[in-house]
Amino acid sequence: MTRPDGRANDELRPTKITCGVQAFPEGSVLIETGMTRVLCAVSVEDNVPRFLRGSGQGWVTAEYAMLPRSTLTRTPRERTPRGRTQEIQRLIGRSLRAAVDLEQLGERTFTVDCDVLQADAGTRTAAITGSYVALHLAIAALVDEKQLPELPILSAIAATSVGIVDGEVLLDLCYEEDADADADFNIVMTAEGEFVEVQGTAEGIPYSRGALDNVLSAAEDGIRQLIAIQQDAIASA
Amino acid sequence: MTRPDGRANDELRPTKITCGVQAFPEGSVLIETGMTRVLCAVSVEDNVPRFLRGSGQGWVTAEYAMLPRSTLTRTPRERTPRGRTQEIQRLIGRSLRAAVDLEQLGERTFTVDCDVLQADAGTRTAAITGSYVALHLAIAALVDEKQLPELPILSAIAATSVGIVDGEVLLDLCYEEDADADADFNIVMTAEGEFVEVQGTAEGIPYSRGALDNVLSAAEDGIRQLIAIQQDAIASA
Amino acid sequence: MTRPDGRANDELRPTKITCGVQAFPEGSVLIETGMTRVLCAVSVEDNVPRFLRGSGQGWVTAEYAMLPRSTLTRTPRERTPRGRTQEIQRLIGRSLRAAVDLEQLGERTFTVDCDVLQADAGTRTAAITGSYVALHLAIAALVDEKQLPELPILSAIAATSVGIVDGEVLLDLCYEEDADADADFNIVMTAEGEFVEVQGTAEGIPYSRGALDNVLSAAEDGIRQLIAIQQDAIASA
Amino acid sequence: MTRPDGRANDELRPTKITCGVQAFPEGSVLIETGMTRVLCAVSVEDNVPRFLRGSGQGWVTAEYAMLPRSTLTRTPRERTPRGRTQEIQRLIGRSLRAAVDLEQLGERTFTVDCDVLQADAGTRTAAITGSYVALHLAIAALVDEKQLPELPILSAIAATSVGIVDGEVLLDLCYEEDADADADFNIVMTAEGEFVEVQGTAEGIPYSRGALDNVLSAAEDGIRQLIAIQQDAIASA
Amino acid sequence: MTRPDGRANDELRPTKITCGVQAFPEGSVLIETGMTRVLCAVSVEDNVPRFLRGSGQGWVTAEYAMLPRSTLTRTPRERTPRGRTQEIQRLIGRSLRAAVDLEQLGERTFTVDCDVLQADAGTRTAAITGSYVALHLAIAALVDEKQLPELPILSAIAATSVGIVDGEVLLDLCYEEDADADADFNIVMTAEGEFVEVQGTAEGIPYSRGALDNVLSAAEDGIRQLIAIQQDAIASA
Amino acid sequence: MTRPDGRANDELRPTKITCGVQAFPEGSVLIETGMTRVLCAVSVEDNVPRFLRGSGQGWVTAEYAMLPRSTLTRTPRERTPRGRTQEIQRLIGRSLRAAVDLEQLGERTFTVDCDVLQADAGTRTAAITGSYVALHLAIAALVDEKQLPELPILSAIAATSVGIVDGEVLLDLCYEEDADADADFNIVMTAEGEFVEVQGTAEGIPYSRGALDNVLSAAEDGIRQLIAIQQDAIASA
Repeated sequence: MTRPDGRANDELRPTKITCGVQAFPEGSVLIETGMTRVLCAVSVEDNVPRFLRGSGQGWVTAEYAMLPRSTLTRTPRERTPRGRTQEIQRLIGRSLRAAVDLEQLGERTFTVDCDVLQADAGTRTAAITGSYVALHLAIAALVDEKQLPELPILSAIAATSVGIVDGEVLLDLCYEEDADADADFNIVMTAEGEFVEVQGTAEGIPYSRGALDNVLSAAEDGIRQLIAIQQDAIASA
Repeated sequence: MTRPDGRANDELRPTKITCGVQAFPEGSVLIETGMTRVLCAVSVEDNVPRFLRGSGQGWVTAEYAMLPRSTLTRTPRERTPRGRTQEIQRLIGRSLRAAVDLEQLGERTFTVDCDVLQADAGTRTAAITGSYVALHLAIAALVDEKQLPELPILSAIAATSVGIVDGEVLLDLCYEEDADADADFNIVMTAEGEFVEVQGTAEGIPYSRGALDNVLSAAEDGIRQLIAIQQDAIASA
Repeated sequence: MTRPDGRANDELRPTKITCGVQAFPEGSVLIETGMTRVLCAVSVEDNVPRFLRGSGQGWVTAEYAMLPRSTLTRTPRERTPRGRTQEIQRLIGRSLRAAVDLEQLGERTFTVDCDVLQADAGTRTAAITGSYVALHLAIAALVDEKQLPELPILSAIAATSVGIVDGEVLLDLCYEEDADADADFNIVMTAEGEFVEVQGTAEGIPYSRGALDNVLSAAEDGIRQLIAIQQDAIASA
Repeated sequence: MTRPDGRANDELRPTKITCGVQAFPEGSVLIETGMTRVLCAVSVEDNVPRFLRGSGQGWVTAEYAMLPRSTLTRTPRERTPRGRTQEIQRLIGRSLRAAVDLEQLGERTFTVDCDVLQADAGTRTAAITGSYVALHLAIAALVDEKQLPELPILSAIAATSVGIVDGEVLLDLCYEEDADADADFNIVMTAEGEFVEVQGTAEGIPYSRGALDNVLSAAEDGIRQLIAIQQDAIASA
Repeated sequence: MTRPDGRANDELRPTKITCGVQAFPEGSVLIETGMTRVLCAVSVEDNVPRFLRGSGQGWVTAEYAMLPRSTLTRTPRERTPRGRTQEIQRLIGRSLRAAVDLEQLGERTFTVDCDVLQADAGTRTAAITGSYVALHLAIAALVDEKQLPELPILSAIAATSVGIVDGEVLLDLCYEEDADADADFNIVMTAEGEFVEVQGTAEGIPYSRGALDNVLSAAEDGIRQLIAIQQDAIASA
Repeated sequence: MTRPDGRANDELRPTKITCGVQAFPEGSVLIETGMTRVLCAVSVEDNVPRFLRGSGQGWVTAEYAMLPRSTLTRTPRERTPRGRTQEIQRLIGRSLRAAVDLEQLGERTFTVDCDVLQADAGTRTAAITGSYVALHLAIAALVDEKQLPELPILSAIAATSVGIVDGEVLLDLCYEEDADADADFNIVMTAEGEFVEVQGTAEGIPYSRGALDNVLSAAEDGIRQLIAIQQDAIASA
């Protein structure tokens, strides 16, 4: 089987992270993965949700939306975020909270807006990978401004998708592959190689434990490369 | 470490499935797992969502709600289902669709209402385990009425939760354990031991690949027992 | 004319009230009237609506909902309560407030959730009759815990429906009768035989003052029996 | 006890019905009862709600709203009609449907808009009394235009309120009395003296059967006078 | 070209402003312009929107709505104000704020409710012209009650519409003309002849600068007459 | 007075239009005006709103939204478009419809999504200027594909803002100037120099007819330059 864009089964799409693409956010990043493009912008506010007030602790939350024509045909704007959107928002927020030491953030909320400019599958994992960089920039700026004594980051995190298509394990699916997948995985890992999130859904055909093992190995390799790309982007920012 | 209810780490809570608890649904079941109680009711309608019209294919969808006082303190009714609710509904529906041959169902929609009467953790996995039985009853009734030639079921499915608490892998968490878990897993499997869904979230501490292996093994054991309870319930219905 | 279930015109359906059916509410009751089944759960909170703050006075309010498949065919969940639902909620709340001395309750809100598990007519009157018992249990618990000096109950209340069907006055209509009624009455009374609420609607044929007199007499008899059933339930709780 | 405006206990407020106050509706009326003023406008459309399509039968429905400053202090506009508004709308519609022979109306919907310009209690009963006239005008116009062979009206209807205040039965409460009432009744009757609707709510003190008898007698007298005012208005239109 | 109602091109429709038409508002006015009729009611509250709290400054805001049968055929009530309604509300509020010295109003909000009883074009400009009078009455009452030292009014304002129909400039369009207009203008001016708002939209055919000049001259003449009618109404109130 | 960015009073900000910035829309453009950046994407569908079905005529409509962090501080996403947003959407749609011959478009809807990536005032006029180009590209593509016989464009249109600040007329306000303006104008013109829309609002100080004349002259000059930039962008696409 040949992949539509000629990649090897364990090969990521070309991925590029550009920092500082917007003038106003405290941290902003454009991540491009193949044709997928997501703008990640971090806003910092000096207050926290009600359940954290007085705790001294910070919070990280995320919103995710697609421009109407990020997709092949036009997708109407969502007034109330649909189930899929809410799942993605919750996943991004949860993943980013695993990367930072909330107790060291102070009573601040970091809101990460992930706006998909162009969608060719893998938007949620690109959003996580890009958002980590934008969040790092925003927090580092607080350290630079002496508002935080040191960088309260526990570990870098990044994410990728893996699919089982016709029995083969493919890393970082594009849209065409995604539509055909028997099972679909989104995996978030730390730079230390531990799992923050594993989500694996059989779209058509249940998968064996052996297949799951291969999926996890492919994800580990891909995420290691993504974390290197993140580090380069942060270093050159 | 001793579990609050004295169970072994790999022991399910007492689980009971009672069929036919409501007069009107095509299939109905009360599932009790420890203190958790979920009513699962299947309604059959002779039409399908727009995207399936004319396809000859059927559909299975699920709704999930909690009675306001199923919880320790009162939870207001949701007007628009929140993110958590939508995720659960989508998970239940997806899991049930993996259990049946949609193409053999005819243009019918099976709506499964999962109403939580009492919540002590594990409501979504109890809902899946109970709903499979209610769905089986509703489909079997169609076969009895000669509306379907044979039972279009691919495999029984059941679900359980597993947690990592203080480094130990615990099967089928109760509320008290759930609140303390470092990582939380919901796993859906077939009677053949293949995975339909694996969802594993690090709530606080990322988990290693070795820990994940132990979690999967615990889930396999638990789900095997649940499938036996399902078969008994169906046999005696 | 024979009634569908063979009852005499002035005969209630078999009615049973079971206390303590849920683990968490301050008071909970399952009321069964013929095939109608309503779960009534009382939650107590230590605050009151804005218009009562600082008054020293308490409040009682009610919510009413039907499980989607409590009905013969599936009824979609209501996001915004419809007119009928709102009328019923207001009726239940108003009736219960007539039973208690709000000034002696302290600044507490008692929220009564009436969830219909199965509907065969008379759900709103069953909800009132059952909710009174659940409310009594919740208030008595506060007295037991010395949070209230004595039981601030003015009078027991109960409710039933009466219909005029083909010119005959029938007590406690079932669904089949309800659909045919020329006029439909819901009546709430105290243990002392006074009226809290009389609602009589001509669905098709206006009714004379003489017919109304007969309806009221039938309701009085029925409610006297319901109050005895309530007292037994409370005594054995 | 003297009433605030010096009326006898069984005396209506001065009531005036003016026909044709708006240029566009098929029937329109301004009803003034004391300081209460309600505009009633009937719109006729050549279709019916889904459940009546193909039945040959017509429908009458009502909407009720208050101008923000119809009240002593400003009441915000309702986006979603509140419970009270929905109850009133349902009451008006039901009452008007009792006045006409729906089967003779043809597949037409008569929508009655009752807009309260000024509110001094009794707005819902004024709306019913006024709307009957507006509906009569709209139907009579169809007869004039030979779209209907004869007037499909079963009986005139009118409505009034009665209250029990300090143990006395008072006809047609004004706002000041309404706020003090122990029990509050809205009664809709036909020209023949039969009841279409009796709604009696104890706001504070339950009422005896004897008191209810006195209330009904007062209502009968008041409604007889209102029906004469309706007839004069129709005759001079 | 003859206008439908025989007016000269630069002639206003007969316009009448009646003060004090409602009992409860602090200022109320009925404005009639041809067949168009708008009720304008001002409510004063002793607080201001959040962004003005503590500023010592007041605020003026407006709501606009049409009775369902103000129009030729019935227009359903708007739950969420549509775009057109929001534009009109914003225009009325902005125009009135230009008329008063907000800093001298104290921390009070003046809410102007403009309810269209009958619509024959020009409802938004009639609403502005009428609302100015109602607002003047409400503010003058505060001066009379010594709550304000002097009348904080900068200038009277009034508004009219102008259209270009078949190349001719017509003042104060009625519905029939409005539907045919190539371009449509709403203009708000002060008593001193300066512009508060100019809105000119080409509905079909773009307009030249020369045409715009003629439109502005026609508006100036009309508004001068409207301001005289306002002054008479205020003087005789 | 010197402008914040040193421009002459009648000088536009540097403006750049880049075509084809998104892969999927039928026409797409990024317009940059100073720091303001708007993405304009056109989607073509083969159907029209209900009121045009069967007319053979096409439709152009627009949506406008701001990314949450397009602004200096974060602006929450709008679920229901606010009044300002609705006004802008209506203005863009109306302006674009003036540019094309709807009758020659066939029964197609052109939806223009204007998403503001960065906001430094003038976003609505930039959206109009950019959208015209994107619409031109989408229509020209239909001509290229022989789906339309010839380009059904009546005239190019473009828009700019003008303000009166401290008595001076300034072309193309940036945010800092916009916040200080006494009066604010948005003007849409054709390539032939006729007006499609003039909107002039006195934010604080009413303006004279002479001032309005100067504003219109400044706008004419600016729009002439913008139309040249549009033509270059189209030519090089």
